[in-house]
Amino acid sequence: MKFTCNQQVLSKAINTVSKAVTNRTTIPILKGILLKAKDGKLILTASDLDLSIEKIIEADIAIEGEIVVLSRLFGEIIRKLPNENITFDLQEGNTLIITCSTSQFNIVCFPSDEFPNISTIDTNERLSLDRELFKEMIRKTAFAASVDESKGVIVGVLIELQENYLNMVALDGFRMAVLKEEMKNAGEKKIIISSKILNEISKIVSEVEDEDLDIILDQKKAVIILEGTRVVLRLLEGEFIKYRDIIPKESKTKVVLNKGNFLESIERASLFAKEGKNNLVKLSISENLMNITSRSEEGNVKEEVIISKTGENLDIGFNSKYLIDVLKVIDEDQILLELNTSVSPCLVKPVNGNQFTYLILPVRLTTN
Amino acid sequence: MKFTCNQQVLSKAINTVSKAVTNRTTIPILKGILLKAKDGKLILTASDLDLSIEKIIEADIAIEGEIVVLSRLFGEIIRKLPNENITFDLQEGNTLIITCSTSQFNIVCFPSDEFPNISTIDTNERLSLDRELFKEMIRKTAFAASVDESKGVIVGVLIELQENYLNMVALDGFRMAVLKEEMKNAGEKKIIISSKILNEISKIVSEVEDEDLDIILDQKKAVIILEGTRVVLRLLEGEFIKYRDIIPKESKTKVVLNKGNFLESIERASLFAKEGKNNLVKLSISENLMNITSRSEEGNVKEEVIISKTGENLDIGFNSKYLIDVLKVIDEDQILLELNTSVSPCLVKPVNGNQFTYLILPVRLTTN
Repeated sequence: MKFTCNQQVLSKAINTVSKAVTNRTTIPILKGILLKAKDGKLILTASDLDLSIEKIIEADIAIEGEIVVLSRLFGEIIRKLPNENITFDLQEGNTLIITCSTSQFNIVCFPSDEFPNISTIDTNERLSLDRELFKEMIRKTAFAASVDESKGVIVGVLIELQENYLNMVALDGFRMAVLKEEMKNAGEKKIIISSKILNEISKIVSEVEDEDLDIILDQKKAVIILEGTRVVLRLLEGEFIKYRDIIPKESKTKVVLNKGNFLESIERASLFAKEGKNNLVKLSISENLMNITSRSEEGNVKEEVIISKTGENLDIGFNSKYLIDVLKVIDEDQILLELNTSVSPCLVKPVNGNQFTYLILPVRLTTN
Repeated sequence: MKFTCNQQVLSKAINTVSKAVTNRTTIPILKGILLKAKDGKLILTASDLDLSIEKIIEADIAIEGEIVVLSRLFGEIIRKLPNENITFDLQEGNTLIITCSTSQFNIVCFPSDEFPNISTIDTNERLSLDRELFKEMIRKTAFAASVDESKGVIVGVLIELQENYLNMVALDGFRMAVLKEEMKNAGEKKIIISSKILNEISKIVSEVEDEDLDIILDQKKAVIILEGTRVVLRLLEGEFIKYRDIIPKESKTKVVLNKGNFLESIERASLFAKEGKNNLVKLSISENLMNITSRSEEGNVKEEVIISKTGENLDIGFNSKYLIDVLKVIDEDQILLELNTSVSPCLVKPVNGNQFTYLILPVRLTTN
């Protein structure tokens, strides 16, 4: 194998594929990046078996071939070289000679035959999505997924295609985020993707300049196709919670308030909530006013937020983290809270539109 | 105690004084900031006994008084309040009521009588220094001090006033940085200040807008005076190494080279040096060319740097960290290396001027 390519282009490609490299692996080859020089292109591939990323870049191929290089070392070498052409020359005994300007590196490599095969999918079911929309959908749901790996499919986000809608749902047993986007002829399909992988995909999508991305699905895998980049990911298997049944249909108390003021007040109240268990903040909803209180051994706080209320007064407690998380992803100025009792779930939505719904379970308030 | 002051002004002051707050203390009061409302001003003080910082800000004082607040909690509360006036009202039982806009906090405080007294110095020996120059002198020396607290005074930087010069010297047993600045009528004095404290002072100095700073010295303490800010620090006691005796007076090999190229090559070579012990990189100096090599189990590297040499050829090994550290603080383009043998110290200086000298001990090269 012998080829030449540009330092900046290669460095950027390594940066993309190395998102699939894990150092917490017992399989040494997975710490590597597969370099394949073929048909006038260089293909870089990395995989942690759950997520695989493949990036194709321009290269001047003198001799075709393939080899696996250690991701960390290779990435650091290429990043520290000047922005010039770099020549790669594979020797007998798996030594790769890297030459650029006044530098010459000899690095020990690994044969490519043990590297996992990133298979493709032979189906034509292809979903086309706007890049920014997809990133936004991930931002508004993935944070609500469970981070506890023992909890099964709820570490993932449900992506549900249903007639003319694409729904994304994530929950962790204490809160749930549901996002609904129109999508013409979406068909009928349900898949679950790990929220961690979705966050990595969001970063990869940010790095390419395409407007759209294509997703190809089968039962076990999804392939995301961008300009020069292909991401293959393993779907989570299992039955997702019937999320529609959890969302209350009616509410006794409706509160409209300014999101920014609410977020700032909750953040200040949570300075004390941090000290106690459950990050408890208490909301007291009365005519035109919500009092937010919290206390710890270090002191207490009372915040006032002006609201517009219909229905009954209510005292209710929440884990402030679950409120702060959702208020940070809502872009709208005005939000609506829908409540029933102090022990039943509360819905948080933007005032306009029905795309986004967030459900949060209260923390039971003690009587003293 | 009751007073009102602006949120932004107070938040900035807390940020400055909290640099002297340590959480690694067994004395609870040192986790606090002393607030003293007096003579139409608010004085904030924090201290870890080695370093004390006092900051005076404008405040509208209704009732004079003093109290100690927990630094972390108080800082977070003030930072998260809106940029408006905040009123502080101390109640019986050491509860401080903080009111701002729609927020009201009650925090538990501590009486001020256990807070250490930040004494002043009754001497007129006052040194005036340009702020940027002082920061620059810290940047060019403090990094070379030892980080091993058991090593005595060499965790500090020697500040030596001698006739018309101010010298700053730091060393750790493997390298030494010496900086010499002209200073009219500097007098005769030697003090040693912890490099960690000097780095904190450098940050504080960056935050004020004064051009100059004054330093007052006695045997045990130094006081640094800036607009509205007073920093009191404990000097390190002990005899500093006679550093002039260590600097070689002659050299058999002199090398002039471009600093940027040298730094980049050493950084690339150190990618392998990291893996081995001592971060060893080998410099082979011949006519007009220096080869830099390094190796580990993962491979090896050879870098070429064009040089201008007088004197003998030489092979010499260094810990790459000690070279990278100094090359990062030298701002000049061209540097001079002065060498003798492969086991004697090497000097690194800018080609022009004799203000800065860096000495580095070589690592013995094995023969294989």
